[in-house]
Amino acid sequence: MSFVELHGRRYRLPTRPVVVICIDGCDPEYISDALHRGLCPNLSGMVRQGFAGIADCVMPSFTNPNNVSIVTGAPPREHGIAGNYYLDRETGEEIMVNDARMLRGATLLALLSQAGIPTAAVTAKDKLTKLIGNGLAGPCFSSERAGQTSLADYGFATAETLVGRPRPDMYSPDLSLYVLDAGLELLKRGISQVLYLSLSDFVQHKYAPGEPASDDFLLEIDRRIGEFIALGATVGCVADHGMSRKTDFHGTAQLLFVEDVLTDTFGDGGARVICPITDPFVRHHGALGSFVRVYLRDAGQIESARTLLASRPGVHEVLSRREAADRLELPYDREADLVVISKEDWALGAARKDHDLDAVRDRPLRTHGGYSEQRVPFLVSRPLDDEGLEWAGSHRLHNYDVFHAILNHTD
Amino acid sequence: MSFVELHGRRYRLPTRPVVVICIDGCDPEYISDALHRGLCPNLSGMVRQGFAGIADCVMPSFTNPNNVSIVTGAPPREHGIAGNYYLDRETGEEIMVNDARMLRGATLLALLSQAGIPTAAVTAKDKLTKLIGNGLAGPCFSSERAGQTSLADYGFATAETLVGRPRPDMYSPDLSLYVLDAGLELLKRGISQVLYLSLSDFVQHKYAPGEPASDDFLLEIDRRIGEFIALGATVGCVADHGMSRKTDFHGTAQLLFVEDVLTDTFGDGGARVICPITDPFVRHHGALGSFVRVYLRDAGQIESARTLLASRPGVHEVLSRREAADRLELPYDREADLVVISKEDWALGAARKDHDLDAVRDRPLRTHGGYSEQRVPFLVSRPLDDEGLEWAGSHRLHNYDVFHAILNHTD
Repeated sequence: MSFVELHGRRYRLPTRPVVVICIDGCDPEYISDALHRGLCPNLSGMVRQGFAGIADCVMPSFTNPNNVSIVTGAPPREHGIAGNYYLDRETGEEIMVNDARMLRGATLLALLSQAGIPTAAVTAKDKLTKLIGNGLAGPCFSSERAGQTSLADYGFATAETLVGRPRPDMYSPDLSLYVLDAGLELLKRGISQVLYLSLSDFVQHKYAPGEPASDDFLLEIDRRIGEFIALGATVGCVADHGMSRKTDFHGTAQLLFVEDVLTDTFGDGGARVICPITDPFVRHHGALGSFVRVYLRDAGQIESARTLLASRPGVHEVLSRREAADRLELPYDREADLVVISKEDWALGAARKDHDLDAVRDRPLRTHGGYSEQRVPFLVSRPLDDEGLEWAGSHRLHNYDVFHAILNHTD
Repeated sequence: MSFVELHGRRYRLPTRPVVVICIDGCDPEYISDALHRGLCPNLSGMVRQGFAGIADCVMPSFTNPNNVSIVTGAPPREHGIAGNYYLDRETGEEIMVNDARMLRGATLLALLSQAGIPTAAVTAKDKLTKLIGNGLAGPCFSSERAGQTSLADYGFATAETLVGRPRPDMYSPDLSLYVLDAGLELLKRGISQVLYLSLSDFVQHKYAPGEPASDDFLLEIDRRIGEFIALGATVGCVADHGMSRKTDFHGTAQLLFVEDVLTDTFGDGGARVICPITDPFVRHHGALGSFVRVYLRDAGQIESARTLLASRPGVHEVLSRREAADRLELPYDREADLVVISKEDWALGAARKDHDLDAVRDRPLRTHGGYSEQRVPFLVSRPLDDEGLEWAGSHRLHNYDVFHAILNHTD
């Protein structure tokens, strides 16, 4: 068989190495700014010689739904992962989405590996490996747990042995560079032919385009992209979401605590608010994002909660469960009573007491989750064929089209 | 009587001079960037000592609807002005909105002047004077026609004589500075106590925040703001809309010609697309904006046109007439069959042949009209009283609240 098929789309098996990099939180502005200043020669080369578009990520513009969309070529309605964190309506339990229980259907990585293509996935945070590595017959590990991951099947005691240095700190740019270095080793040693490499957005949460720490990070990524290309790989770069500053003219974070607003009106326990950005590493963002889910105790209060929230400062839009599922291509059965999406310069939380605001006081708050962080780069190191260009010019491009563009529309 | 009343809100009569400046196209980023670099001492002073928020403009984020909203304190649903340019459904005629025929209700400027407060309005482009000057008993003129406007009632042959220099070129930063200079003269000479000064967005269409031409312009505005404050005026600065770059990573404008898309499917004359940004001065933007209105010849095709447009690259949202009226607070009777709103990095046109693209080739295209240009600065030179702060903290702030904030909530 010369193809795999998933969610209604066929993908040709690759004849040369393919490296898809998800530059977590890489707002298009980082790329535009780097191109404008000539900072990143290899990214510039991709734009000049390959394909360079701006695509949408899936909503909510968070890490898990988008990583899963990229490796399945489909929106959350198909694969079922609509957040990093969710409320089980039946048990009332809040659940961190850190394994594949919630995943519906296969991933491209699993199908490619099962079709005999040596495939690997490396991520910065470990939470993603179980999700995107589901069914993957090949190396799948994180920088976070590189020291504890055996690669004995491939001749290395651990992933740390493969990379040749100890795993970096969780809150460092190197957590991402380590992912790329691991990918380079897997490629150089012939262990893998298809690589999915998913970075961390620690730097983007803290630094705007053009800030020295951001420049340094981009330069290091760019150098490694050059190495992948030099090794003969077709490289695709997308992001799981963009990033916006969430501060007023004083530099103060603009925050709306949605559960507090609802509690003031409906009383204690009248509403539960889930922040689907939540993950164990809160120094990035304090679990504050641009999208929250609202569950009302009394279904009769949904409409008045909607009206109340729509009038609050910082709210861009409040959607019903049905509207959210239909407009944002989300799984209806896992959707909340209401979805709240913030303005580009505001962030949303649940109850103020549940957020560690000290964790995000070091730098002006930057975060994501809404429409204002939906635009992401879509770069491929080789040009698309004519059919691919026709397709890209006539459809709404998504980050999850990157495997389609590379496998079906490059040589 | 110590107040005037309009669209359900009471406004106290001012006891000191009030100057409201609409800095056309002033995206909050211009202010943030200027504050960050310490470029504009008087704007910084307003942020430090007065009130500084980020507000929404009304949709569509175009000049006419927003200027009228600012001087009426209400959304287009109330005052009826929903674009610069519209299609008369009954006659099929395309009409430039350049007089008050379409305006519903009075303006605050008219009411204040009728209540005995010496009031004036000065604009950059003449198209606005008839609209916002409707019923205004006081000076109302534009830079554009300063040489032809008699101010004989106030002791000056023309507005040019008042300002003391000839009116500037239509495509120059000075067109806006001339508005401010005229306002300064009106204030200094005791001719007016309330001033509405509406600038041009020529500079913002051409230059991003931080570019030298933008810095020069902001500095000149800032200096004049300082003069108004020194003359004892309470100064409010808002914008009619923000501004976004509409280019891809190659620097090429990302354009969707909505009428061409519809003609391909529904045939010649099957659809008419109105670009409500259209005005006689197209070198700013080539009549390309982030919001267009669609009229179908056959009402039975509305739903299929909607589906078709929603799938096209660059489209953020397609709204029905009812949805547009309800969600965007627009007058239903003047709304089109469909409203199309673009992504932040795309612009919309009607038919390619109707747009002079050469007019916008000199610089990377920047324009407005959509949600991505809805955020605007809201600065007042004096602090709001406690009641005003409470109000601003619990409501969705709009640019059209600026007279309310100043007249009702500053000393």
